[in-house]
Amino acid sequence: MINDFIYNIPVKVYFGKGHLHHLGEELKKYGTRVLMTYGGGSIKRMGLYDKVVREIKAAGLELWELDGIEPNPRIGSVRKGAQMCKEHNIDVLLAVGGGSTIDATKWIAAGACVDFDPWDFLDLSKQAPVKKALPIVDILTLSATGSEMDTAAVISNPETRDKIGRLDPMILPKVSFLNPENTYTVSPYQTACGSSDIMSHILEVYFNTGDDLYMLDTFMEGMMKTVIKYAPVAMKEPDNYEARANLMWTSSWAINGFVTAGKKHAWSCHPMEHELSAYYDITHGHGLAILTPRWMKYCLDETNVYKYVQFGVNVFGIDPKLPPMEIADKAIDMLADFFFKTLGLKSTLPEVGIDETYFDIMAAKSVNYGTLPGFKPLRKEDVLEIYKMCLK
Amino acid sequence: MINDFIYNIPVKVYFGKGHLHHLGEELKKYGTRVLMTYGGGSIKRMGLYDKVVREIKAAGLELWELDGIEPNPRIGSVRKGAQMCKEHNIDVLLAVGGGSTIDATKWIAAGACVDFDPWDFLDLSKQAPVKKALPIVDILTLSATGSEMDTAAVISNPETRDKIGRLDPMILPKVSFLNPENTYTVSPYQTACGSSDIMSHILEVYFNTGDDLYMLDTFMEGMMKTVIKYAPVAMKEPDNYEARANLMWTSSWAINGFVTAGKKHAWSCHPMEHELSAYYDITHGHGLAILTPRWMKYCLDETNVYKYVQFGVNVFGIDPKLPPMEIADKAIDMLADFFFKTLGLKSTLPEVGIDETYFDIMAAKSVNYGTLPGFKPLRKEDVLEIYKMCLK
Repeated sequence: MINDFIYNIPVKVYFGKGHLHHLGEELKKYGTRVLMTYGGGSIKRMGLYDKVVREIKAAGLELWELDGIEPNPRIGSVRKGAQMCKEHNIDVLLAVGGGSTIDATKWIAAGACVDFDPWDFLDLSKQAPVKKALPIVDILTLSATGSEMDTAAVISNPETRDKIGRLDPMILPKVSFLNPENTYTVSPYQTACGSSDIMSHILEVYFNTGDDLYMLDTFMEGMMKTVIKYAPVAMKEPDNYEARANLMWTSSWAINGFVTAGKKHAWSCHPMEHELSAYYDITHGHGLAILTPRWMKYCLDETNVYKYVQFGVNVFGIDPKLPPMEIADKAIDMLADFFFKTLGLKSTLPEVGIDETYFDIMAAKSVNYGTLPGFKPLRKEDVLEIYKMCLK
Repeated sequence: MINDFIYNIPVKVYFGKGHLHHLGEELKKYGTRVLMTYGGGSIKRMGLYDKVVREIKAAGLELWELDGIEPNPRIGSVRKGAQMCKEHNIDVLLAVGGGSTIDATKWIAAGACVDFDPWDFLDLSKQAPVKKALPIVDILTLSATGSEMDTAAVISNPETRDKIGRLDPMILPKVSFLNPENTYTVSPYQTACGSSDIMSHILEVYFNTGDDLYMLDTFMEGMMKTVIKYAPVAMKEPDNYEARANLMWTSSWAINGFVTAGKKHAWSCHPMEHELSAYYDITHGHGLAILTPRWMKYCLDETNVYKYVQFGVNVFGIDPKLPPMEIADKAIDMLADFFFKTLGLKSTLPEVGIDETYFDIMAAKSVNYGTLPGFKPLRKEDVLEIYKMCLK
């Protein structure tokens, strides 16, 4: 059964090199008082900050700034940004950065419109309704999370060791500027982690036992082939426009809701990884690369092997005449090789500084103290087993 | 060079069986006075008309109707609809039908807002600017033109023997209801013609010699594989939901502007076909099926053979180790077999009642008395040659 769905992605995207002169006109549609948010200063080093400020000034807009948004963005930054919006009567937010900056900006946008602590939007015991949010424009500098075109945003709370994501149409950006040149300075390591994040977004949806729209499966296979083809190119030649452009547009479409349409299962690796980066602050995409092949191996059985076969044949070109289980094993190995050999990511948790200390609590939290209703439903014991598989 | 582009498709799509109860709430967003447009009555035979009227009444809306919109919709229907909108102060248009009904409705929506003859929007010597249009909601009953999600609409003028298409963001539908069940009554022949239309929309973009986004090429290959897989299923089993759903969502995405992003070439087969259906009123998709393999054969040379190879290998699974020209020829033959054997369409112009009588004037008009700047630039003589190739 193909499930009903509603498709509704009204984000306007300026894709390419020559669009920044539209920034002023787009911001002006929403007002004159702009809060620009960004991270640790890489946008200054690459010269983007100056270009953006020039456009804003040329458009006659008033500018405030919030910098220092963390790689796994924290509720503290959200609180600070929401406060600034209220103090300065901000009309529109401009996020300049990667997924972390955009994610934080999304909850700043919602937090600016309420009197309570923005953490109440995330807190699982509260999940305050999002009735309103300031409009968001963004300029993307990292191809990974897809935040530029989706309704999701993940925030960490170091006090409670929570890392919680939530989706709401109110926080969808209005306009996104996607210039692949703005990712030229992304390091090979971050390019690898971003690419692994994109792959995971696709795999979480692709591995689904419901009757799916075949058409969407072909799109997902195409996106995975795109990442496999261009991630190593972008790592070796950071200013290869073709590679950066393909990764950038794929990162948006992997997770904007298009390929998810009609699929019924929840995600698996993301909840498991969120605990790792909540407890250890590792790079999200790296955690996903370590977990994903183990998760695939753990879930494989006779009832779902057909999906692994489809993946192996259509994405990695494995001979369809081999026995199904052989194709499945080979496909998992080839994916692991892509992550750990081609992209050069560490393949075990100890190599990124994670041991068994918090496995128990992380496993319990990843399944919300119950069952994760994914491709294969996972209980705490299952996650524990998958974490252990990542030790060596 | 990958060209810059702007992506902006704010159509809300309700996809699936169970969404019609949202119709009233969506229409109400735009007003209370609704003009419903449709074709020859098939929506009454299939029971859709009654369901729609029931929703409209239940929502307390006022309803007017314009029926009889032709398969190649004519300017007369547009004039009539625009007049009705003015007379009855219509707030919102509801098109129920295939691409023809939606196309006519698009120019009715624009025509309702001006004092001049709506043909002035199309007339190549005038192309009056579209400053305003009534909002459009549609319920699709045929997977083919993609009009439900794009900015284009084609109108015929029998007096001048013109068939002219034009794109404008003002005439993009606000909301589209895509229920694959509403295509169960489409005949095998119309299913074949619709599928050929979808294939053509993709091929017109795919055959492009610019440096393209590889990612988008993989999507196009996936969509072509989807049509090739499901068109024959839908012809044999008209109420196969999976087949109808895949064809329907593919028809929208083939032409909504997504895969076109960054491509530079104009289309070729559509202008050539528009002359055929303007002069002979044949089904658009059938004309495209006859023209497309000939056009591909005519354009093939050493400089562009690589694109045919990509097509043949990735869409039809032809062995990549064969010589490129052999792959290209084979790919064209396999496409022709799909149109003429699998879909059972007539393979020559005489078989659909077209002879050489108007070749000269049709060829001249198809290139606008100049050059068509497509995959391979075509002058009148080239089109004449392609038309002649379609004689046997």
